[in-house]
Amino acid sequence: MQLSHRITHLTGGGSDGWDVFYRARAMIAAGEAVTELTIGEHDIRTDPAILAAMDASARGGHTGYAEVPGVAALRDRVAERVQARSGVPTGRGNVLITPGGQAGLFAAHSATCDPGDAALFIDPYYVTYPGTIRGVGARPVPVRTRPEDGFLPRPQDIAARADGAKSLLINTPNNPTGAVYGRDTLEGIAQVCRDRDLWLISDEVYETQVWDGAHLSPRALPGMADRTLVIGSMSKSHAMTGSRCGWIVGPEAAITHLVNLATHTTYGVPGFVQDAALFALEQGEEMEQAIAAPFRRRRALAQEILSRQNVLRLLPPQGAMYLMLDVSATGMDGHDFAAALLDAQRIAVMPGGSFGAAASGHIRVAMTIADAEFAAALERLCAFAAERAREPAV
Amino acid sequence: MQLSHRITHLTGGGSDGWDVFYRARAMIAAGEAVTELTIGEHDIRTDPAILAAMDASARGGHTGYAEVPGVAALRDRVAERVQARSGVPTGRGNVLITPGGQAGLFAAHSATCDPGDAALFIDPYYVTYPGTIRGVGARPVPVRTRPEDGFLPRPQDIAARADGAKSLLINTPNNPTGAVYGRDTLEGIAQVCRDRDLWLISDEVYETQVWDGAHLSPRALPGMADRTLVIGSMSKSHAMTGSRCGWIVGPEAAITHLVNLATHTTYGVPGFVQDAALFALEQGEEMEQAIAAPFRRRRALAQEILSRQNVLRLLPPQGAMYLMLDVSATGMDGHDFAAALLDAQRIAVMPGGSFGAAASGHIRVAMTIADAEFAAALERLCAFAAERAREPAV
Repeated sequence: MQLSHRITHLTGGGSDGWDVFYRARAMIAAGEAVTELTIGEHDIRTDPAILAAMDASARGGHTGYAEVPGVAALRDRVAERVQARSGVPTGRGNVLITPGGQAGLFAAHSATCDPGDAALFIDPYYVTYPGTIRGVGARPVPVRTRPEDGFLPRPQDIAARADGAKSLLINTPNNPTGAVYGRDTLEGIAQVCRDRDLWLISDEVYETQVWDGAHLSPRALPGMADRTLVIGSMSKSHAMTGSRCGWIVGPEAAITHLVNLATHTTYGVPGFVQDAALFALEQGEEMEQAIAAPFRRRRALAQEILSRQNVLRLLPPQGAMYLMLDVSATGMDGHDFAAALLDAQRIAVMPGGSFGAAASGHIRVAMTIADAEFAAALERLCAFAAERAREPAV
Repeated sequence: MQLSHRITHLTGGGSDGWDVFYRARAMIAAGEAVTELTIGEHDIRTDPAILAAMDASARGGHTGYAEVPGVAALRDRVAERVQARSGVPTGRGNVLITPGGQAGLFAAHSATCDPGDAALFIDPYYVTYPGTIRGVGARPVPVRTRPEDGFLPRPQDIAARADGAKSLLINTPNNPTGAVYGRDTLEGIAQVCRDRDLWLISDEVYETQVWDGAHLSPRALPGMADRTLVIGSMSKSHAMTGSRCGWIVGPEAAITHLVNLATHTTYGVPGFVQDAALFALEQGEEMEQAIAAPFRRRRALAQEILSRQNVLRLLPPQGAMYLMLDVSATGMDGHDFAAALLDAQRIAVMPGGSFGAAASGHIRVAMTIADAEFAAALERLCAFAAERAREPAV
């Protein structure tokens, strides 16, 4: 039986570098000791106090259908938080609660792109981006950035690819590069969106993980609140990855239609999960900073370790839980380096090429294991790179 | 800013009879005493034992990203259950866990229909069906049934509308009609699917609520396992509507692609919710029968009450938690009757037309309040209908 073209071509085919990841997982399953620095998942679990709030909500009877747009108190709390951080007036009607940030990305593209429309995104990119766009029947169009620009997009590169496009997807702080877009970059992006009448889909799920500078939401720029859909999530900020709770913030008219879409795609988010998220948000910045702290510490550790060598070049990570390392001085691209590193050192990292052509000379290292173990793995990784730089493969 | 045609035309526009429902909700919000017989939600909450299992899972650390296809043990348990009930060999690879039945319906249509394809469904229908089809960019094509057939579809009516169609969506036991499709009906449907190379999307979320006869899954018919996607859910069978946990069962090749789609639409279902669902399924049929029992009792009550009058005609409900009543002897259609009933008696029911043109002469009554209250409301409803039948509106 034939399936839809949409679903059978979702990932676009071709090698995507995930073979290294799956090989590492197979080695672990076979009992080998592999140090995994691949996936963006905290090395802590969700705070027991948050889980207690969830249990109290469920036992209190919040187990029936929740309102599809989200529980009113959570929508209000998200609106307050977004307004306090961005300065943009935001109310309940600007917020749809979604079952995670990925569901928000999918819904935002459904809302802005019809089948056949182009949807722009920045390369390097979070791995699901092109498939999310294909999933709504639209056409993914990457805008390639340059390592020498710190992987920040140039507005003219976006404009050059904007014909037939309805949306532009950006991500700051950025996964995989760690770049945090500054005001100049965002103003250039906003100008293109206004000039070319694009929706801006702004993935801000790493907003609490900024190590240099400050997070700026492009929704706060002039004329942008009417054309920006912000994707937020509890996953990274509150170590609630498995709870699948996020949101879209945007113009009321768009949210009204997005609620309608949610009725037909998910029919809402569990009420007890939303009550847990509300409790977590009510703990304020202290909890968020505590959850971000290990990545801040490990980034400092990494900077110190990397400063003692000159083979691997760190794109200074300003945010998020990853290091992007240029491995070209080893004579290998990111994929070959990652494969060789797994074989030789039993350390698993992601080839940069898994996140787009722009990062093919890089690897992405997740800072998601305990400090001492992380530092030791990074030392071994540096030693391996140094050895390969001295003795390049034929 | 312009949104996509897809999202702005999701509900197809026009009156859908939900004004009665929203008016009832507004009256309740304003403090009026309204008896609600509208929505398919149990009058009990999720069993505390299930919630305890969820809490134990969460506190045990199952709070990170769950595997996107679903937790292996739950996929296995669903496969076993489906195999035991249908006789069709079913394994883990045939099962994708989804965040609820609605998400399963959306994914199944994404997997089978490309933008512009026709997707068939049976009228009367569950309210989200046409919007779900529009949401994936496909074209909803209703196949109208007749009250005199007990709202069972005629195969030749399906075949007559199948040009350009990729899928047929059926629902047995049926919401809103209460019909349970027998072997003859399903064999006729299966024949059309084979002849016209259609995917059959079989919504079986009411499978545990059968009062007459037995549930038969069309996946068990000859040649159908390769072309059927079964939608299941914990919502109705285990009073877990708010937990958003369901599944799709289908051919392995289709499930592989559906897992890929899930990566881009939802990124899985909370692990602690899946563990709760696993616990619930492990309780076996006893728990399911206890949850179905109130509807079985109220259906018997309704049959007794309705037997004492001859204005309202009950389409004998063989399954599900609703009564479909023909109100044409009152001189009103379903919408006018429901509106007048709300005004005169403060009883809220759904106009049949909310579920498609085929049911416009009917109302749907949900059996979702306590027995005594339900019986009293039905008595008042019958008295109101008798009065209107004697004194028709000019």
